[in-house]
Amino acid sequence: MSGGKSGKLTVVGLGPGEARFLTPEASAALNEAEALYGYEPYLDRVPARAGQTRHASDNREELARAGAALAHAAGGAQVAMVSGGDPGVFAMAAAVIEAIETGPEEWRALELVVVPGITAMLAVAARCGAPLGHDFCAISLSDNLKPWELIEKRLRLAAQAGFAMAFYNPVSKARPHQLETAFDILREELPGSVPVIFGRAVGRPDERLRLVPLANAHGHMADMATCILVGSVETRIVERPGLPSLVYTPRRAGDV
Amino acid sequence: MSGGKSGKLTVVGLGPGEARFLTPEASAALNEAEALYGYEPYLDRVPARAGQTRHASDNREELARAGAALAHAAGGAQVAMVSGGDPGVFAMAAAVIEAIETGPEEWRALELVVVPGITAMLAVAARCGAPLGHDFCAISLSDNLKPWELIEKRLRLAAQAGFAMAFYNPVSKARPHQLETAFDILREELPGSVPVIFGRAVGRPDERLRLVPLANAHGHMADMATCILVGSVETRIVERPGLPSLVYTPRRAGDV
Repeated sequence: MSGGKSGKLTVVGLGPGEARFLTPEASAALNEAEALYGYEPYLDRVPARAGQTRHASDNREELARAGAALAHAAGGAQVAMVSGGDPGVFAMAAAVIEAIETGPEEWRALELVVVPGITAMLAVAARCGAPLGHDFCAISLSDNLKPWELIEKRLRLAAQAGFAMAFYNPVSKARPHQLETAFDILREELPGSVPVIFGRAVGRPDERLRLVPLANAHGHMADMATCILVGSVETRIVERPGLPSLVYTPRRAGDV
Repeated sequence: MSGGKSGKLTVVGLGPGEARFLTPEASAALNEAEALYGYEPYLDRVPARAGQTRHASDNREELARAGAALAHAAGGAQVAMVSGGDPGVFAMAAAVIEAIETGPEEWRALELVVVPGITAMLAVAARCGAPLGHDFCAISLSDNLKPWELIEKRLRLAAQAGFAMAFYNPVSKARPHQLETAFDILREELPGSVPVIFGRAVGRPDERLRLVPLANAHGHMADMATCILVGSVETRIVERPGLPSLVYTPRRAGDV
Protein backbone atom coordinates (compact mmCIF):
# COMPACT_ATOMS: atom_id res chain seq x y z
CA MET A 1 0.00 0.00 0.00
CA SER A 2 1.80 3.10 -1.23
CA GLY A 3 -0.26 5.69 0.65
CA GLY A 4 -0.69 8.92 -1.28
CA LYS A 5 0.07 7.49 -4.70
CA SER A 6 -3.11 6.95 -6.65
CA GLY A 7 -3.58 3.72 -8.52
CA LYS A 8 -4.80 3.20 -12.03
CA LEU A 9 -6.09 0.22 -13.97
CA THR A 10 -5.84 0.23 -17.76
CA VAL A 11 -7.65 -2.50 -19.69
CA VAL A 12 -5.65 -2.90 -22.88
CA GLY A 13 -6.88 -4.39 -26.15
CA LEU A 14 -4.06 -6.28 -27.87
CA GLY A 15 -5.95 -6.86 -31.10
CA PRO A 16 -6.11 -10.23 -32.82
CA GLY A 17 -2.51 -11.35 -32.53
CA GLU A 18 0.56 -9.94 -34.18
CA ALA A 19 2.15 -6.66 -33.08
CA ARG A 20 1.10 -4.95 -36.32
CA PHE A 21 -2.41 -4.62 -34.81
CA LEU A 22 -1.27 -3.08 -31.51
CA THR A 23 -2.15 0.63 -31.42
CA PRO A 24 0.37 3.19 -30.13
CA GLU A 25 -2.04 3.89 -27.25
CA ALA A 26 -1.98 0.22 -26.25
CA SER A 27 1.83 0.03 -26.53
CA ALA A 28 2.19 3.09 -24.31
CA ALA A 29 -0.18 1.63 -21.70
CA LEU A 30 1.79 -1.62 -21.60
CA ASN A 31 5.07 0.27 -21.24
CA GLU A 32 3.81 2.43 -18.37
CA ALA A 33 2.41 -0.42 -16.31
CA GLU A 34 4.19 -1.71 -13.21
CA ALA A 35 2.14 -4.91 -13.25
CA LEU A 36 0.43 -6.87 -16.02
CA TYR A 37 -2.57 -9.13 -15.46
CA GLY A 38 -4.26 -11.39 -17.96
CA TYR A 39 -4.98 -14.76 -19.47
CA GLU A 40 -1.60 -16.42 -20.01
CA PRO A 41 -1.57 -16.65 -23.85
CA TYR A 42 -2.33 -12.92 -24.07
CA LEU A 43 0.38 -12.02 -21.55
CA ASP A 44 2.81 -14.09 -23.60
CA ARG A 45 2.35 -11.66 -26.50
CA VAL A 46 3.75 -8.75 -24.48
CA PRO A 47 7.57 -8.51 -24.47
CA ALA A 48 9.08 -8.72 -20.97
CA ARG A 49 10.26 -5.48 -19.38
CA ALA A 50 12.52 -5.15 -16.34
CA GLY A 51 10.71 -4.06 -13.18
CA GLN A 52 7.29 -5.10 -14.48
CA THR A 53 5.55 -7.99 -12.70
CA ARG A 54 3.28 -10.49 -14.46
CA HIS A 55 0.21 -12.19 -13.07
CA ALA A 56 -1.14 -14.86 -15.39
CA SER A 57 -4.45 -16.56 -14.85
CA ASP A 58 -6.66 -19.18 -16.42
CA ASN A 59 -9.30 -18.35 -19.03
CA ARG A 60 -12.31 -19.11 -16.83
CA GLU A 61 -11.36 -16.84 -13.96
CA GLU A 62 -12.31 -13.45 -15.39
CA LEU A 63 -13.98 -11.97 -12.32
CA ALA A 64 -11.26 -13.19 -9.93
CA ARG A 65 -8.58 -11.84 -12.27
CA ALA A 66 -10.35 -8.48 -12.43
CA GLY A 67 -10.57 -8.34 -8.64
CA ALA A 68 -6.87 -9.14 -8.21
CA ALA A 69 -5.88 -6.39 -10.66
CA LEU A 70 -8.20 -3.86 -8.98
CA ALA A 71 -6.86 -4.72 -5.52
CA HIS A 72 -3.33 -4.24 -6.83
CA ALA A 73 -4.21 -0.87 -8.37
CA ALA A 74 -6.00 0.18 -5.17
CA GLY A 75 -2.65 -0.21 -3.44
CA GLY A 76 -1.34 2.66 -5.56
CA ALA A 77 0.12 0.78 -8.53
CA GLN A 78 -0.17 1.40 -12.27
CA VAL A 79 -1.72 -1.87 -13.42
CA ALA A 80 -2.58 -3.07 -16.93
CA MET A 81 -5.03 -5.87 -17.69
CA VAL A 82 -4.37 -7.31 -21.13
CA SER A 83 -7.25 -8.52 -23.26
CA GLY A 84 -7.34 -10.16 -26.68
CA GLY A 85 -9.01 -8.16 -29.46
CA ASP A 86 -11.04 -5.28 -28.05
CA PRO A 87 -11.61 -5.34 -24.27
CA GLY A 88 -15.21 -4.20 -24.70
CA VAL A 89 -16.31 -7.05 -27.02
CA PHE A 90 -16.77 -10.34 -25.13
CA ALA A 91 -13.57 -9.63 -23.22
CA MET A 92 -12.24 -8.15 -19.98
CA ALA A 93 -13.77 -4.65 -19.74
CA ALA A 94 -17.21 -5.83 -18.62
CA ALA A 95 -15.68 -8.22 -16.06
CA VAL A 96 -13.56 -5.41 -14.60
CA ILE A 97 -16.56 -3.08 -14.25
CA GLU A 98 -18.67 -5.87 -12.75
CA ALA A 99 -15.88 -6.36 -10.18
CA ILE A 100 -15.92 -2.62 -9.46
CA GLU A 101 -19.70 -2.63 -9.01
CA THR A 102 -19.68 -5.59 -6.63
CA GLY A 103 -16.33 -4.93 -4.89
CA PRO A 104 -15.12 -2.62 -2.11
CA GLU A 105 -16.21 1.03 -2.31
CA GLU A 106 -12.59 2.23 -2.79
CA TRP A 107 -12.39 0.55 -6.19
CA ARG A 108 -14.87 3.13 -7.51
CA ALA A 109 -12.34 5.88 -6.81
CA LEU A 110 -9.68 4.27 -9.02
CA GLU A 111 -8.79 5.71 -12.38
CA LEU A 112 -9.99 3.23 -15.01
CA VAL A 113 -9.01 3.50 -18.68
CA VAL A 114 -10.15 1.16 -21.44
CA VAL A 115 -7.89 1.12 -24.51
CA PRO A 116 -9.77 -0.18 -27.55
CA GLY A 117 -8.32 -2.75 -29.92
CA ILE A 118 -9.08 -4.49 -33.22
CA THR A 119 -11.69 -7.10 -32.33
CA ALA A 120 -11.64 -10.48 -34.09
CA MET A 121 -14.64 -9.91 -36.37
CA LEU A 122 -13.03 -6.81 -37.89
CA ALA A 123 -9.80 -8.70 -38.60
CA VAL A 124 -11.65 -11.64 -40.17
CA ALA A 125 -13.85 -9.29 -42.21
CA ALA A 126 -10.80 -7.39 -43.50
CA ARG A 127 -9.12 -10.62 -44.62
CA CYS A 128 -11.99 -11.61 -46.89
CA GLY A 129 -13.42 -8.28 -48.08
CA ALA A 130 -16.25 -6.46 -46.34
CA PRO A 131 -18.83 -9.02 -45.16
CA LEU A 132 -19.85 -6.66 -42.32
CA GLY A 133 -20.19 -3.74 -44.72
CA HIS A 134 -23.84 -3.23 -43.83
CA ASP A 135 -25.91 -3.59 -40.63
CA PHE A 136 -24.66 -6.49 -38.52
CA CYS A 137 -24.67 -8.05 -35.06
CA ALA A 138 -22.16 -9.80 -32.82
CA ILE A 139 -23.32 -12.77 -30.71
CA SER A 140 -21.43 -14.97 -28.26
CA LEU A 141 -22.55 -18.56 -28.75
CA SER A 142 -21.39 -19.58 -25.28
CA ASP A 143 -24.18 -20.57 -22.94
CA ASN A 144 -21.93 -20.35 -19.88
CA LEU A 145 -23.49 -17.00 -19.01
CA LYS A 146 -26.87 -17.04 -20.74
CA PRO A 147 -29.48 -19.68 -21.55
CA TRP A 148 -29.15 -21.43 -24.91
CA GLU A 149 -32.80 -20.57 -25.63
CA LEU A 150 -31.87 -16.87 -25.59
CA ILE A 151 -29.11 -17.54 -28.14
CA GLU A 152 -31.59 -19.36 -30.39
CA LYS A 153 -34.05 -16.47 -30.13
CA ARG A 154 -31.33 -13.95 -31.02
CA LEU A 155 -30.21 -15.98 -34.03
CA ARG A 156 -33.75 -16.08 -35.43
CA LEU A 157 -34.40 -12.38 -34.85
CA ALA A 158 -31.01 -11.40 -36.30
CA ALA A 159 -31.74 -13.43 -39.43
CA GLN A 160 -35.22 -11.90 -39.73
CA ALA A 161 -33.71 -8.43 -39.34
CA GLY A 162 -31.33 -9.09 -42.24
CA PHE A 163 -28.19 -8.54 -40.16
CA ALA A 164 -24.87 -10.00 -41.18
CA MET A 165 -23.56 -11.78 -38.07
CA ALA A 166 -20.33 -12.42 -36.21
CA PHE A 167 -20.14 -15.33 -33.76
CA TYR A 168 -17.67 -15.30 -30.89
CA ASN A 169 -16.97 -18.34 -28.66
CA PRO A 170 -18.56 -20.64 -31.25
CA VAL A 171 -17.68 -23.95 -29.61
CA SER A 172 -16.02 -25.47 -26.58
CA LYS A 173 -15.25 -28.98 -25.41
CA ALA A 174 -18.30 -28.80 -23.17
CA ARG A 175 -20.62 -27.92 -26.07
CA PRO A 176 -19.38 -29.37 -29.37
CA HIS A 177 -22.86 -29.71 -30.92
CA GLN A 178 -24.41 -26.28 -30.33
CA LEU A 179 -22.80 -24.63 -33.34
CA GLU A 180 -24.43 -27.21 -35.63
CA THR A 181 -27.75 -26.37 -33.97
CA ALA A 182 -27.10 -22.67 -34.59
CA PHE A 183 -26.50 -23.33 -38.30
CA ASP A 184 -29.67 -25.47 -38.43
CA ILE A 185 -31.67 -22.54 -37.03
CA LEU A 186 -30.15 -20.15 -39.57
CA ARG A 187 -30.92 -22.63 -42.36
CA GLU A 188 -34.58 -22.39 -41.37
CA GLU A 189 -34.48 -18.60 -41.67
CA LEU A 190 -32.04 -17.91 -44.53
CA PRO A 191 -31.23 -19.26 -48.03
CA GLY A 192 -28.54 -21.97 -48.11
CA SER A 193 -26.47 -19.77 -50.43
CA VAL A 194 -25.66 -17.20 -47.71
CA PRO A 195 -21.84 -17.10 -47.32
CA VAL A 196 -20.29 -18.28 -44.06
CA ILE A 197 -16.66 -17.50 -43.20
CA PHE A 198 -14.66 -19.42 -40.63
CA GLY A 199 -11.72 -17.28 -39.55
CA ARG A 200 -9.29 -19.19 -37.37
CA ALA A 201 -6.38 -17.47 -35.62
CA VAL A 202 -6.68 -14.51 -37.99
CA GLY A 203 -3.77 -12.12 -37.53
CA ARG A 204 -1.50 -14.93 -36.35
CA PRO A 205 1.01 -17.02 -38.34
CA ASP A 206 -1.26 -20.09 -38.35
CA GLU A 207 -4.24 -18.15 -39.74
CA ARG A 208 -6.79 -20.17 -41.71
CA LEU A 209 -9.82 -18.88 -43.61
CA ARG A 210 -12.62 -20.96 -45.06
CA LEU A 211 -15.64 -19.80 -47.08
CA VAL A 212 -18.68 -22.09 -47.46
CA PRO A 213 -22.36 -21.58 -48.22
CA LEU A 214 -24.66 -21.82 -45.18
CA ALA A 215 -26.04 -25.07 -46.62
CA ASN A 216 -22.61 -26.67 -46.09
CA ALA A 217 -21.58 -24.95 -42.85
CA HIS A 218 -20.99 -27.39 -40.01
CA GLY A 219 -20.01 -27.27 -36.39
CA HIS A 220 -16.81 -29.26 -36.83
CA MET A 221 -15.37 -26.48 -39.03
CA ALA A 222 -14.76 -24.27 -35.97
CA ASP A 223 -12.74 -24.50 -32.78
CA MET A 224 -12.32 -22.15 -29.84
CA ALA A 225 -9.95 -19.89 -31.82
CA THR A 226 -12.46 -19.35 -34.63
CA CYS A 227 -14.56 -16.26 -35.26
CA ILE A 228 -17.43 -16.99 -37.67
CA LEU A 229 -19.05 -14.46 -39.98
CA VAL A 230 -22.43 -15.14 -41.59
CA GLY A 231 -23.61 -12.94 -44.43
CA SER A 232 -27.10 -11.62 -45.04
CA VAL A 233 -29.24 -12.34 -48.10
CA GLU A 234 -27.59 -9.28 -49.66
CA THR A 235 -24.01 -10.51 -49.21
CA ARG A 236 -22.13 -11.10 -52.48
CA ILE A 237 -19.11 -13.10 -53.59
CA VAL A 238 -16.76 -11.64 -56.20
CA GLU A 239 -14.66 -14.30 -57.95
CA ARG A 240 -11.11 -13.37 -58.95
CA PRO A 241 -8.74 -15.23 -61.30
CA GLY A 242 -5.94 -16.80 -59.25
CA LEU A 243 -6.89 -14.88 -56.11
CA PRO A 244 -9.23 -15.66 -53.19
CA SER A 245 -12.82 -14.56 -53.71
CA LEU A 246 -13.93 -11.33 -52.08
CA VAL A 247 -17.02 -11.38 -49.86
CA TYR A 248 -18.91 -8.17 -49.24
CA THR A 249 -22.25 -6.93 -48.00
CA PRO A 250 -23.22 -3.95 -50.15
CA ARG A 251 -23.89 -0.54 -48.66
CA ARG A 252 -27.28 -0.60 -50.37
CA ALA A 253 -30.08 -2.83 -48.98
CA GLY A 254 -33.75 -3.47 -49.65
CA ASP A 255 -35.62 -2.00 -52.58
CA VAL A 256 -34.50 1.62 -52.52
CA MET B 1 0.65 2.67 -67.27
CA SER B 2 3.80 1.06 -65.95
CA GLY B 3 3.55 -2.22 -67.85
CA GLY B 4 4.93 -5.16 -65.91
CA LYS B 5 4.69 -3.58 -62.48
CA SER B 6 1.70 -4.95 -60.63
CA GLY B 7 -0.56 -2.54 -58.81
CA LYS B 8 -2.00 -2.81 -55.35
CA LEU B 9 -4.82 -1.09 -53.50
CA THR B 10 -4.77 -1.01 -49.71
CA VAL B 11 -7.85 0.22 -47.88
CA VAL B 12 -6.55 1.63 -44.62
CA GLY B 13 -8.53 2.13 -41.43
CA LEU B 14 -7.31 5.26 -39.63
CA GLY B 15 -9.33 4.64 -36.47
CA PRO B 16 -11.43 7.33 -34.79
CA GLY B 17 -9.03 10.26 -34.96
CA GLU B 18 -5.78 10.79 -33.16
CA ALA B 19 -2.60 8.98 -34.18
CA ARG B 20 -2.64 6.93 -30.95
CA PHE B 21 -5.30 4.72 -32.60
CA LEU B 22 -3.37 4.12 -35.83
CA THR B 23 -2.03 0.55 -35.91
CA PRO B 24 1.55 -0.16 -37.08
CA GLU B 25 0.07 -2.06 -40.05
CA ALA B 26 -1.91 1.04 -41.07
CA SER B 27 1.13 3.32 -40.64
CA ALA B 28 3.24 1.01 -42.80
CA ALA B 29 0.57 0.92 -45.51
CA LEU B 30 0.40 4.73 -45.58
CA ASN B 31 4.18 4.98 -45.80
CA GLU B 32 4.46 2.53 -48.69
CA ALA B 33 1.78 4.15 -50.84
CA GLU B 34 2.68 6.24 -53.87
CA ALA B 35 -0.80 7.76 -53.97
CA LEU B 36 -3.42 8.41 -51.29
CA TYR B 37 -7.15 8.61 -51.99
CA GLY B 38 -9.91 9.52 -49.58
CA TYR B 39 -12.45 11.90 -48.14
CA GLU B 40 -10.60 15.13 -47.50
CA PRO B 41 -10.85 15.31 -43.66
CA TYR B 42 -9.41 11.79 -43.42
CA LEU B 43 -6.57 12.57 -45.83
CA ASP B 44 -5.77 15.63 -43.70
CA ARG B 45 -4.93 13.32 -40.79
CA VAL B 46 -2.07 11.71 -42.72
CA PRO B 47 1.24 13.62 -42.59
CA ALA B 48 2.51 14.70 -46.02
CA ARG B 49 5.35 12.69 -47.53
CA ALA B 50 7.56 13.69 -50.48
CA GLY B 51 6.79 11.82 -53.68
CA GLN B 52 3.31 10.78 -52.53
CA THR B 53 0.34 12.22 -54.42
CA ARG B 54 -3.01 13.02 -52.79
CA HIS B 55 -6.45 12.73 -54.31
CA ALA B 56 -9.15 14.16 -52.07
CA SER B 57 -12.84 13.73 -52.77
CA ASP B 58 -16.19 14.66 -51.33
CA ASN B 59 -18.03 12.47 -48.81
CA ARG B 60 -20.86 11.46 -51.14
CA GLU B 61 -18.66 10.14 -53.95
CA GLU B 62 -17.63 6.77 -52.50
CA LEU B 63 -18.06 4.66 -55.62
CA ALA B 64 -16.40 7.21 -57.92
CA ARG B 65 -13.51 7.56 -55.45
CA ALA B 66 -13.11 3.78 -55.31
CA GLY B 67 -13.08 3.58 -59.11
CA ALA B 68 -10.44 6.31 -59.40
CA ALA B 69 -8.19 4.55 -56.88
CA LEU B 70 -8.63 1.18 -58.63
CA ALA B 71 -7.85 2.69 -62.04
CA HIS B 72 -4.72 4.25 -60.58
CA ALA B 73 -3.62 0.93 -59.04
CA ALA B 74 -4.39 -0.89 -62.29
CA GLY B 75 -1.75 1.32 -63.91
CA GLY B 76 0.82 -0.37 -61.68
CA ALA B 77 0.87 1.97 -58.68
CA GLN B 78 0.84 1.26 -54.97
CA VAL B 79 -2.32 3.08 -53.90
CA ALA B 80 -3.86 3.55 -50.45
CA MET B 81 -7.48 4.50 -49.82
CA VAL B 82 -7.87 6.03 -46.36
CA SER B 83 -11.02 5.40 -44.37
CA GLY B 84 -12.14 6.68 -40.99
CA GLY B 85 -12.52 4.05 -38.26
CA ASP B 86 -12.54 0.55 -39.73
CA PRO B 87 -12.90 0.32 -43.53
CA GLY B 88 -15.28 -2.63 -43.20
CA VAL B 89 -17.87 -0.92 -40.96
CA PHE B 90 -20.00 1.57 -42.93
CA ALA B 91 -16.86 2.78 -44.68
CA MET B 92 -14.79 2.36 -47.84
CA ALA B 93 -14.12 -1.39 -48.12
CA ALA B 94 -17.60 -2.32 -49.39
CA ALA B 95 -17.55 0.54 -51.92
CA VAL B 96 -14.16 -0.58 -53.25
CA ILE B 97 -15.34 -4.18 -53.69
CA GLU B 98 -18.58 -3.03 -55.31
CA ALA B 99 -16.44 -1.04 -57.76
CA ILE B 100 -14.35 -4.15 -58.45
CA GLU B 101 -17.47 -6.24 -59.06
CA THR B 102 -19.01 -3.74 -61.47
CA GLY B 103 -15.79 -2.41 -63.05
CA PRO B 104 -13.39 -3.61 -65.76
CA GLU B 105 -12.27 -7.25 -65.55
CA GLU B 106 -8.62 -6.24 -64.92
CA TRP B 107 -9.52 -4.77 -61.52
CA ARG B 108 -10.20 -8.31 -60.28
CA ALA B 109 -6.54 -9.18 -60.84
CA LEU B 110 -5.32 -6.38 -58.54
CA GLU B 111 -3.92 -7.14 -55.13
CA LEU B 112 -6.40 -5.78 -52.58
CA VAL B 113 -5.60 -5.50 -48.89
CA VAL B 114 -7.97 -4.23 -46.19
CA VAL B 115 -6.23 -2.96 -43.04
CA PRO B 116 -8.65 -2.98 -40.10
CA GLY B 117 -8.97 -0.07 -37.69
CA ILE B 118 -10.70 0.91 -34.46
CA THR B 119 -14.28 1.62 -35.47
CA ALA B 120 -16.19 4.45 -33.76
CA MET B 121 -18.46 2.27 -31.60
CA LEU B 122 -15.45 0.58 -29.97
CA ALA B 123 -13.86 3.94 -29.16
CA VAL B 124 -17.09 5.33 -27.71
CA ALA B 125 -17.70 2.15 -25.72
CA ALA B 126 -14.16 2.23 -24.29
CA ARG B 127 -14.62 5.84 -23.13
CA CYS B 128 -17.64 5.04 -21.00
CA GLY B 129 -17.02 1.47 -19.82
CA ALA B 130 -18.27 -1.61 -21.66
CA PRO B 131 -21.79 -0.89 -22.96
CA LEU B 132 -21.21 -3.39 -25.82
CA GLY B 133 -19.98 -6.04 -23.38
CA HIS B 134 -22.68 -8.49 -24.43
CA ASP B 135 -24.46 -9.30 -27.72
CA PHE B 136 -24.94 -6.17 -29.82
CA CYS B 137 -25.68 -4.84 -33.29
CA ALA B 138 -24.50 -1.96 -35.45
CA ILE B 139 -27.02 -0.12 -37.63
CA SER B 140 -26.58 2.78 -40.04
CA LEU B 141 -29.53 5.14 -39.62
CA SER B 142 -28.98 6.68 -43.05
CA ASP B 143 -31.77 5.98 -45.52
CA ASN B 144 -29.65 7.08 -48.48
CA LEU B 145 -29.04 3.44 -49.38
CA LYS B 146 -31.94 1.57 -47.77
CA PRO B 147 -35.61 2.31 -47.11
CA TRP B 148 -36.45 3.90 -43.76
CA GLU B 149 -39.03 1.14 -43.18
CA LEU B 150 -36.19 -1.41 -43.13
CA ILE B 151 -34.37 0.65 -40.50
CA GLU B 152 -37.53 0.75 -38.36
CA LYS B 153 -37.95 -3.02 -38.68
CA ARG B 154 -34.33 -3.62 -37.65
CA LEU B 155 -34.65 -1.32 -34.63
CA ARG B 156 -37.69 -3.25 -33.38
CA LEU B 157 -36.15 -6.68 -33.94
CA ALA B 158 -32.85 -5.61 -32.34
CA ALA B 159 -34.73 -4.37 -29.27
CA GLN B 160 -36.77 -7.59 -29.09
CA ALA B 161 -33.55 -9.62 -29.37
CA GLY B 162 -32.06 -7.79 -26.38
CA PHE B 163 -29.09 -6.45 -28.34
CA ALA B 164 -27.19 -3.41 -27.23
CA MET B 165 -26.95 -1.17 -30.29
CA ALA B 166 -24.57 1.19 -32.03
CA PHE B 167 -25.94 3.75 -34.49
CA TYR B 168 -23.75 5.13 -37.26
CA ASN B 169 -24.76 8.08 -39.49
CA PRO B 170 -27.48 9.04 -37.01
CA VAL B 171 -28.53 12.33 -38.64
CA SER B 172 -27.87 14.55 -41.62
CA LYS B 173 -29.15 17.90 -42.79
CA ALA B 174 -31.49 16.10 -45.18
CA ARG B 175 -33.08 14.03 -42.36
CA PRO B 176 -32.98 15.89 -39.03
CA HIS B 177 -36.10 14.19 -37.61
CA GLN B 178 -35.45 10.49 -38.22
CA LEU B 179 -33.30 9.98 -35.13
CA GLU B 180 -36.18 11.19 -32.95
CA THR B 181 -38.42 8.67 -34.72
CA ALA B 182 -35.82 5.94 -34.02
CA PHE B 183 -35.85 6.78 -30.31
CA ASP B 184 -39.68 6.78 -30.33
CA ILE B 185 -39.64 3.27 -31.78
CA LEU B 186 -37.16 2.09 -29.15
CA ARG B 187 -39.30 3.69 -26.41
CA GLU B 188 -42.16 1.47 -27.54
CA GLU B 189 -39.97 -1.64 -27.19
CA LEU B 190 -37.67 -0.88 -24.23
CA PRO B 191 -37.91 0.65 -20.74
CA GLY B 192 -37.19 4.39 -20.57
CA SER B 193 -34.34 3.69 -18.16
CA VAL B 194 -32.11 2.05 -20.80
CA PRO B 195 -28.89 4.09 -21.04
CA VAL B 196 -28.12 5.98 -24.25
CA ILE B 197 -24.65 7.36 -24.95
CA PHE B 198 -23.95 10.10 -27.46
CA GLY B 199 -20.27 9.98 -28.38
CA ARG B 200 -19.24 12.95 -30.49
CA ALA B 201 -15.78 13.16 -32.11
CA VAL B 202 -14.48 10.51 -29.71
CA GLY B 203 -10.74 10.14 -30.03
CA ARG B 204 -10.36 13.75 -31.15
CA PRO B 205 -9.52 16.86 -29.11
CA ASP B 206 -13.10 18.15 -29.21
CA GLU B 207 -14.56 14.85 -27.92
CA ARG B 208 -17.90 15.10 -26.10
CA LEU B 209 -19.77 12.32 -24.29
CA ARG B 210 -23.31 12.47 -22.98
CA LEU B 211 -25.24 9.81 -21.06
CA VAL B 212 -29.05 10.00 -20.84
CA PRO B 213 -31.85 7.53 -20.23
CA LEU B 214 -33.76 6.47 -23.35
CA ALA B 215 -36.78 8.38 -22.00
CA ASN B 216 -34.81 11.61 -22.40
CA ALA B 217 -32.86 10.81 -25.58
CA HIS B 218 -33.62 13.22 -28.42
CA GLY B 219 -32.59 13.70 -32.00
CA HIS B 220 -31.07 17.13 -31.47
CA MET B 221 -28.41 15.59 -29.18
CA ALA B 222 -26.54 14.14 -32.18
CA ASP B 223 -24.87 15.49 -35.28
CA MET B 224 -23.10 13.81 -38.19
CA ALA B 225 -19.95 13.23 -36.10
CA THR B 226 -21.84 11.35 -33.37
CA CYS B 227 -21.89 7.60 -32.78
CA ILE B 228 -24.77 6.58 -30.51
CA LEU B 229 -24.80 3.55 -28.23
CA VAL B 230 -28.05 2.22 -26.77
CA GLY B 231 -27.91 -0.31 -23.94
CA SER B 232 -30.09 -3.36 -23.47
CA VAL B 233 -32.40 -3.98 -20.49
CA GLU B 234 -29.39 -5.64 -18.83
CA THR B 235 -27.09 -2.60 -19.17
CA ARG B 236 -26.01 -1.11 -15.82
CA ILE B 237 -24.65 2.21 -14.61
CA VAL B 238 -22.00 2.28 -11.88
CA GLU B 239 -21.83 5.63 -10.09
CA ARG B 240 -18.41 6.82 -8.92
CA PRO B 241 -17.58 9.67 -6.52
CA GLY B 242 -16.04 12.55 -8.47
CA LEU B 243 -15.63 10.47 -11.62
CA PRO B 244 -17.87 9.84 -14.63
CA SER B 245 -20.25 6.93 -14.25
CA LEU B 246 -19.31 3.64 -15.89
CA VAL B 247 -21.81 2.01 -18.23
CA TYR B 248 -21.57 -1.71 -18.89
CA THR B 249 -23.58 -4.58 -20.25
CA PRO B 250 -22.82 -7.63 -18.08
CA ARG B 251 -21.40 -10.81 -19.58
CA ARG B 252 -24.33 -12.66 -17.99
CA ALA B 253 -27.82 -12.36 -19.53
CA GLY B 254 -31.26 -13.88 -18.99
CA ASP B 255 -32.03 -16.18 -16.09
CA VAL B 256 -29.05 -18.55 -16.09
